[in-house]
Amino acid sequence: MPQTLTPGEALEALGLTLPKPPAAPGSFVGALVHGGQVIVSGQVPLHNGQVFATGRLGDDISIETGQEAARICLLNALAQLSHATGGLDNVKGFGRMAGYVSATPDFTQHGAVIEAASELLVQIFGDKGAHARCAIGVASLPRGVPVEIELTAFL
Amino acid sequence: MPQTLTPGEALEALGLTLPKPPAAPGSFVGALVHGGQVIVSGQVPLHNGQVFATGRLGDDISIETGQEAARICLLNALAQLSHATGGLDNVKGFGRMAGYVSATPDFTQHGAVIEAASELLVQIFGDKGAHARCAIGVASLPRGVPVEIELTAFL
Amino acid sequence: MPQTLTPGEALEALGLTLPKPPAAPGSFVGALVHGGQVIVSGQVPLHNGQVFATGRLGDDISIETGQEAARICLLNALAQLSHATGGLDNVKGFGRMAGYVSATPDFTQHGAVIEAASELLVQIFGDKGAHARCAIGVASLPRGVPVEIELTAFL
Repeated sequence: MPQTLTPGEALEALGLTLPKPPAAPGSFVGALVHGGQVIVSGQVPLHNGQVFATGRLGDDISIETGQEAARICLLNALAQLSHATGGLDNVKGFGRMAGYVSATPDFTQHGAVIEAASELLVQIFGDKGAHARCAIGVASLPRGVPVEIELTAFL
Repeated sequence: MPQTLTPGEALEALGLTLPKPPAAPGSFVGALVHGGQVIVSGQVPLHNGQVFATGRLGDDISIETGQEAARICLLNALAQLSHATGGLDNVKGFGRMAGYVSATPDFTQHGAVIEAASELLVQIFGDKGAHARCAIGVASLPRGVPVEIELTAFL
Repeated sequence: MPQTLTPGEALEALGLTLPKPPAAPGSFVGALVHGGQVIVSGQVPLHNGQVFATGRLGDDISIETGQEAARICLLNALAQLSHATGGLDNVKGFGRMAGYVSATPDFTQHGAVIEAASELLVQIFGDKGAHARCAIGVASLPRGVPVEIELTAFL
């Protein structure tokens, strides 16, 4: 369905707005462009400058809250991408999405959490949203957030 | 030695067969090809559709079982690569192997576990099997598996 | 400031010397060069062949010790890069830095630890040191070290 819409139109149809790209909290850039490749720095679920949630999957964070955190991470990643490339219309395709889930040792549904970001990427970009993915459970994440997402794209 | 064999011949000499590439469990692809680069999604030790083992290194999974899991992950990654590129003969070289080991905080032999996958890659591809590597210990992995492997390659 | 210095001059001004690249402990290479891209294998804080420290952030390793470990990882990564490319003067820019921090579940300052490596990279390379970054907390790392760093660069 969204293949006939631009990414901006697809976002609007979903009732979503791209946030301002969060400033990189250190001596690095939000997204790096080189030779047709874009590498977006790991994005955490910051929403209007506030951390959306803190905690771990398998403990105090539900699958649903983790999925919402993954969607916020993805929107921040797309905001970085748009800012670095002059707009999402310039993005020809995606490479790797890495989803880091702060999780207990017995948690097993990392894929269900990160799938929320994958689904949203495909809803926004249609066929161009195809991407490789890796999902793992980590011990902890910056600022105590439950999810962090990395993304690469092509121009 | 295997430099004079094709990857298919080397697999046969090792008594191994490439499995069918496991279907990506979500809205992503098993491997993404772009501009001569191939990014294989994180592969877990699925064998004939079943999880080979569950558990953690340093706890209920031995080094030997972890190494066998790493080999199964690698064969699944090569199956994805072969499917996406029309056959392993088309692969000119490798880039990055990332090995994620589900491990306890005091586990220290992540390298010994992932080395089983590195060794097998070099046995199959000879000099062309040269790759950069990263091995880390994670809190947990999808479906409770002990090892997950990512791989990139060049055409 | 360092923009007018070569990487070698900037290192000297900082009172630092590039170590010998640590031998890859297995069937992989310290850094892989392909088509203008360099992928450096995950580097741990080895100093003169000895592990600089073992332990976890949030437990027995302080932020300051973690930052020193991150700087040693980065110098080892630059040593691999220099060895693989014929010298740091040949490096045109950087891509992705991934910082893995061995950490407790309640640790939140992964960024402060890895920032030490980002700062040092920018001090050595000036504007050319711009990079994307990802920092996560892991359950454990090879040999019990507190930090591991991956790096990609462009020729």
